[in-house]
Amino acid sequence: MAAPVSTDRSPPRDFATVFARLRPHMAELDVFLRSQIAAFEPEIRDMADYCIDTSGKRIRPALVFLSGWQGDGRVLPELVRVAAVVELVHLATLVHDDIMDESELRRGRRTAARAFGPEAAVLLGDALFSHALFLAAQFPTTSVCRLVADSTRRVCAGEIIQTLRRRTDDISDADYRRIVDLKTAELFRASCALGTELAQFPPGYVEAAAIYGRQLGIAYQMYDDLADFFGREDRIGKTLGTDLISGKLTLPLLRLRQVLPEALAQELLEEIRGQRPARLAFWLEQMEGRGIFAAVAEVIFAELEQGEAALAAWSGLAPTPLLLQLGEVLREQVAALRSAAA
Amino acid sequence: MAAPVSTDRSPPRDFATVFARLRPHMAELDVFLRSQIAAFEPEIRDMADYCIDTSGKRIRPALVFLSGWQGDGRVLPELVRVAAVVELVHLATLVHDDIMDESELRRGRRTAARAFGPEAAVLLGDALFSHALFLAAQFPTTSVCRLVADSTRRVCAGEIIQTLRRRTDDISDADYRRIVDLKTAELFRASCALGTELAQFPPGYVEAAAIYGRQLGIAYQMYDDLADFFGREDRIGKTLGTDLISGKLTLPLLRLRQVLPEALAQELLEEIRGQRPARLAFWLEQMEGRGIFAAVAEVIFAELEQGEAALAAWSGLAPTPLLLQLGEVLREQVAALRSAAA
Repeated sequence: MAAPVSTDRSPPRDFATVFARLRPHMAELDVFLRSQIAAFEPEIRDMADYCIDTSGKRIRPALVFLSGWQGDGRVLPELVRVAAVVELVHLATLVHDDIMDESELRRGRRTAARAFGPEAAVLLGDALFSHALFLAAQFPTTSVCRLVADSTRRVCAGEIIQTLRRRTDDISDADYRRIVDLKTAELFRASCALGTELAQFPPGYVEAAAIYGRQLGIAYQMYDDLADFFGREDRIGKTLGTDLISGKLTLPLLRLRQVLPEALAQELLEEIRGQRPARLAFWLEQMEGRGIFAAVAEVIFAELEQGEAALAAWSGLAPTPLLLQLGEVLREQVAALRSAAA
Repeated sequence: MAAPVSTDRSPPRDFATVFARLRPHMAELDVFLRSQIAAFEPEIRDMADYCIDTSGKRIRPALVFLSGWQGDGRVLPELVRVAAVVELVHLATLVHDDIMDESELRRGRRTAARAFGPEAAVLLGDALFSHALFLAAQFPTTSVCRLVADSTRRVCAGEIIQTLRRRTDDISDADYRRIVDLKTAELFRASCALGTELAQFPPGYVEAAAIYGRQLGIAYQMYDDLADFFGREDRIGKTLGTDLISGKLTLPLLRLRQVLPEALAQELLEEIRGQRPARLAFWLEQMEGRGIFAAVAEVIFAELEQGEAALAAWSGLAPTPLLLQLGEVLREQVAALRSAAA
């Protein structure tokens, strides 16, 4: 089945359109995060402040707020606190990721590793992460702490597995999905579970929202990996082809490998292994000619459908339509990649 | 006042003599730690296993067990669990420290950073740390989680401050003590607080044991910094002079700077700043001639006395004599450094 492709050139909705209703929530989150700076030792406050910038997309906090939505837009303090927890965990992983990728910039300014040196950045990530767990331990029961610590371990495991597999061709579709599930979907899942749980929705709904969050996270990461080939740099705000160049076999490359003639497939794998220079334009052309975009889009849509199915029985609850909108927006984003590239 | 100096050449007691009674506790700790490997994702179990080796001194677990001692040598399962938590936090910080120091070996084998690469080691440290917090969240209340997360943030802050001050001469005695307090004493303090609390000793005793642990930790780190100049490599099992060479102004150097004539003090600071090669033998000779060993030993003993004072009102409780023994052993170790060097 070919993926539905939009031919509409009007700008696609992005997550910001869904998040617009969260302005008061995000404002409270900012105030809360800023207030946490004081908890750090005086010597490292400026560094913590630098990392807790307000320019990120804040998708995970948004998932907390949307999952805990009760129909009236009230901002529950428990949700603000737990949104801060998941965002701090995410920021800590970004600080550590940027050390390893030797990235220069993130969100238009120097990464913590560049600004303070990699040594300090390792420890700063640790400090952010411990503060997240400290906040998680302020809830009346240990369940938030347990869920967050468990999720974090899984996020790290996903990143480690990905790191160990870089520059190797020893990776199947199932391996790829597992990495995406751990490194990205896990924290999406946790955000939805925490939001619904703290807003005291029934356990069955907590479970359904968690499944939806997980599937959305998988689809989101797959979209991100697709955009690394088919995006437009001016729109997605980063350099294209970084996965190919850094030797990561993501879904578009896995699918391409499967349909390439043997000789070409070997050339691709040699580039992945770093044995010859990566040819982004060449492989992009190959992808265009072999229907890779549609194949990947189809996988993304199937992942989203699985998530939507989990929410089907809960259409009457306030968060459901909001969460479903995120999936719809993601579909539009995928379609927009296609029309931008075409 | 000159520090008391032993002239006895019989080998000094080390912590192992005090820890001998903890053999059943340490055996249970090993079993427990090994059983935790299964909690990690299959792909990273070997790496986690590699880090959770059994050859370390396990001082922090020993503090947990000794602080929670109830006179009959019973092994409380809560103490085993919390000993695992503090040890995992400590192991995670070692994994991260070794990345930054670019160390080749730790405890006679390759560091995790060398064995798996620095990228994987950053994440592996994170995974160990999150598993520690996950275990901390298994207790009935959030207090363990809160204490451990808070301590960890402070340990990281201490390491960051030390890192930022490397190769600078902008450091006072008070700065040095603060770094030592955060990076080492904090987890000693937490271990004693957790041990006494989980063994249900009265709150006043928890507080007293925490103070003792903190002072022991400060004294222990100062001893370690003294041994970096006055130790014998075959006894302390590491290269001497690493602090001087890496530009860290520790207490022996701070004291030396204070008594050196101005011209020599400037030469020392130039070596700290990396502007000229470090001359370990030369400065060691200067230290010998200017009574630096005795001056530092005096500070160490004064720190220990403060800790002992906190336990004075609690001599009747079972952990007290065991904890005090640790301080006595540390005094003997300091004295032994002197007689070995003489």
